[in-house]
Amino acid sequence: MSKDKQFVREITPQGEDFSQWYIDVIKKADLMSYSPVRGCMVFKPDGYEIWENIQRELDKRFKETGHRNAYFPLFIPESFFQKEKEHVEGFNPELPWVTEAGGEKLEERLAIRPTSETMIGHMYAEWINSYRDLPLLINQWANVVRWEKRTLPFLRTTEFLWQEGHTAHEDEEDARRETMQMLEIYRDFAENFLAMPVIIGQKTPSEKFAGAVDTFSIEAMMKDGKAVQAGTSHYLGTNFAVAFDIKYLNRENQHQFVHTTSWGVSTRLIGATIMAHGDDRGLALPPKVAPTQVIMIPIGPPKTREQVVARTDELFAELKQAGVRVRVDDRADLSPGWKFNEYEMRGVPIRVELGPRDMENGQIVLVSRITGEKKIVQQVNFVQEVQQLLEEIHQEMFNRAKQHLEEHLITVDTLDEFKQYLETNRGFALAGWCGSEACEAQVKEEAGATSRNIPFSPRESKETCLVCGDKAKHTVVFGKSY
Amino acid sequence: MSKDKQFVREITPQGEDFSQWYIDVIKKADLMSYSPVRGCMVFKPDGYEIWENIQRELDKRFKETGHRNAYFPLFIPESFFQKEKEHVEGFNPELPWVTEAGGEKLEERLAIRPTSETMIGHMYAEWINSYRDLPLLINQWANVVRWEKRTLPFLRTTEFLWQEGHTAHEDEEDARRETMQMLEIYRDFAENFLAMPVIIGQKTPSEKFAGAVDTFSIEAMMKDGKAVQAGTSHYLGTNFAVAFDIKYLNRENQHQFVHTTSWGVSTRLIGATIMAHGDDRGLALPPKVAPTQVIMIPIGPPKTREQVVARTDELFAELKQAGVRVRVDDRADLSPGWKFNEYEMRGVPIRVELGPRDMENGQIVLVSRITGEKKIVQQVNFVQEVQQLLEEIHQEMFNRAKQHLEEHLITVDTLDEFKQYLETNRGFALAGWCGSEACEAQVKEEAGATSRNIPFSPRESKETCLVCGDKAKHTVVFGKSY
Repeated sequence: MSKDKQFVREITPQGEDFSQWYIDVIKKADLMSYSPVRGCMVFKPDGYEIWENIQRELDKRFKETGHRNAYFPLFIPESFFQKEKEHVEGFNPELPWVTEAGGEKLEERLAIRPTSETMIGHMYAEWINSYRDLPLLINQWANVVRWEKRTLPFLRTTEFLWQEGHTAHEDEEDARRETMQMLEIYRDFAENFLAMPVIIGQKTPSEKFAGAVDTFSIEAMMKDGKAVQAGTSHYLGTNFAVAFDIKYLNRENQHQFVHTTSWGVSTRLIGATIMAHGDDRGLALPPKVAPTQVIMIPIGPPKTREQVVARTDELFAELKQAGVRVRVDDRADLSPGWKFNEYEMRGVPIRVELGPRDMENGQIVLVSRITGEKKIVQQVNFVQEVQQLLEEIHQEMFNRAKQHLEEHLITVDTLDEFKQYLETNRGFALAGWCGSEACEAQVKEEAGATSRNIPFSPRESKETCLVCGDKAKHTVVFGKSY
Repeated sequence: MSKDKQFVREITPQGEDFSQWYIDVIKKADLMSYSPVRGCMVFKPDGYEIWENIQRELDKRFKETGHRNAYFPLFIPESFFQKEKEHVEGFNPELPWVTEAGGEKLEERLAIRPTSETMIGHMYAEWINSYRDLPLLINQWANVVRWEKRTLPFLRTTEFLWQEGHTAHEDEEDARRETMQMLEIYRDFAENFLAMPVIIGQKTPSEKFAGAVDTFSIEAMMKDGKAVQAGTSHYLGTNFAVAFDIKYLNRENQHQFVHTTSWGVSTRLIGATIMAHGDDRGLALPPKVAPTQVIMIPIGPPKTREQVVARTDELFAELKQAGVRVRVDDRADLSPGWKFNEYEMRGVPIRVELGPRDMENGQIVLVSRITGEKKIVQQVNFVQEVQQLLEEIHQEMFNRAKQHLEEHLITVDTLDEFKQYLETNRGFALAGWCGSEACEAQVKEEAGATSRNIPFSPRESKETCLVCGDKAKHTVVFGKSY
């Protein structure tokens, strides 16, 4: 029996069980399948195409800022991980090891890369000789593996797809400028492409990348009030330069260590986009990232069908020509009502209906997935109206997510206040923090929330630590997270 | 010291030592680095960008023919390989095994994928239920690993990048139509994008893919007369459908096994392109795949320099606007002569020179990498002239490679004839073959040449086997290969 004809399984309402809602929609919308390998998933075409759209847009932005792509080996010799102490401690527990190959036991075990600072550090030491070689601005699109204990499709999988930028610079200033530039690209991308507002800031020392001097992140809020770390950018100082001996001859003819950065986003952005925008009717995909932006459905009785389908095809061609990702569903054996539900569930931003009466009037109907509003427009303005509505839907989705974030970000003076809030609500807390790991750990223990980041522009600055009441060093966003 | 300023190492002439020529050019043109992992290489930006151009073009062609991309796990459980007998025998010796992960020994070893028929077969069994689900047309861009004994950058590496198409069909006819369609896409791509003529045909049983019913290939000739199998397309029959129980309910409501295909090209195309076109001056990249299609070099004395550079930048902007991949090298501390050699060695199809006299005359100089011819054109026609010359260079490169292939493909009646030819020449032999494995093996043993394929349109049909003299079943192309 065709997938399309299967009985329409209900989607669990978000308010009832958000995790089950998530699994229901990604299965029902055909984005993924579980694989027979623990924690690994299959990205089905509709899921993978979201990633392709993300890739295309980010790749353009990386190249516009002078980066080039390269590709480094999947395997990393065990000895490489020993060279940077924090890095090995951070990643060692999650590594899968190749111990045999080609029928023989290997002399040195090879890790499957969890991230490539070590391999790339090794290569940069070979490639970089002079200040003329700097900055070296390289990005890699690749698969990486981390043997996670608890997995969730897209958001936390054993193998995932990502990009990792790795750059080397003459000095701290230039490396920090790069770190911030890439973080800003991520923020802009999240907000203006995925319609997903983010909190931009610095990670606390306990949450930073293993081996980084400073880690910065963008944090998004899901519909259930939990956080997704949607992108990170690290200033690595000379940590990896010292570990891998990456030196250059500077303008004064002296050998210096380079300063490096790394930054990445992954396929977890797919999961974040779904959880940030979806509703009880299913997926709601932001227009810029949606594999199908417009679904066209001819309607009406059999006797006018041929004419209506023919006109639909003409308008389809116009829209396609204009670069809109559009599809027609003219299957005669499925009712319009079934199709309306189906594409609503799949999160297609605009549904277009064309019936015999619309034909007579030279009109056509556009329906927004996000507001449900119907708009009757003249066929002669079809392309322009669709493009405008796609823009409006993007803006509307961003505004709704922004409002949700603001309404679920409370400001608290004490940990008790936060805990009390979480008993009946879900969301983040903005609070003062003294800077001690102990206080941070206590928030985690009692509220189940981690520090998300120290926002660059908190809406308010807090004076005292939410745990110990001492003078606050920072104003921090705390939240439960995926 | 900057790479750009290093002493220009000579390139070993092709006639002296072709293998050394190859290593010299790919190192000197900065396409790759050896990695610390045996048989794995690093694709540096200029090498990787060739792959990006290949990917973009092929991906477009795959999508135009109804295929969609997906992504399947890197790891394949050991038990999966046991399900298709020929497949396991073919790939088992080359597999790397993950035996430990996350600090524990795994219950079942996981292979790193050498190709994904097994994993995808397993998933298709889950996804396919009815004839309505067919054909299922999916492609994957991924890294794969084969633990090769002898490796050569790009051409044969332990880890490499590729695409693998996997499709499922109702019957043999439709699956064979797909197999041929993809083979034809590869042929067209090789010839019209990489300017690399190929021999299109069927592999003999001993050379076919492990698990295929029939394997078809495109075979290209390198400058040293050796072959590169540049792409393959397999009709897999119901072999994997039976192994993984991929059944569908047909239009008569009966359960049937699907017929599957798979087809792939890899980063070895980069190596093939280099070996098919390069010469003693270095790389010669076909315009459509070249990362830089045009290099612009302002020349002349310091007093006119500012003006010349300014005009160069204007013309650069026009060309870039027209979609040409163009760069300017206006570094003042390097001589024009040094730059001419450098970009010739890097294989940039067109060099553009602009000097003070050209400025006065409203002219500009175009130089073809492949013919060395200078063409003085009017600046007002600059974009159009460049685009036309890029077309001409593509055609010239194809013609030269075609002529080389034709001149080094001899027709022989006996193995001795072929052996004699190979003593002083290099190339392929077209010969009759009785169809026995023994005769094929003897060619390999005595001439070091394997059957490349049974060409669809041999220029001549041979009547008797080159080894045993019996009646020929097929006319085959034999050749040494990478």
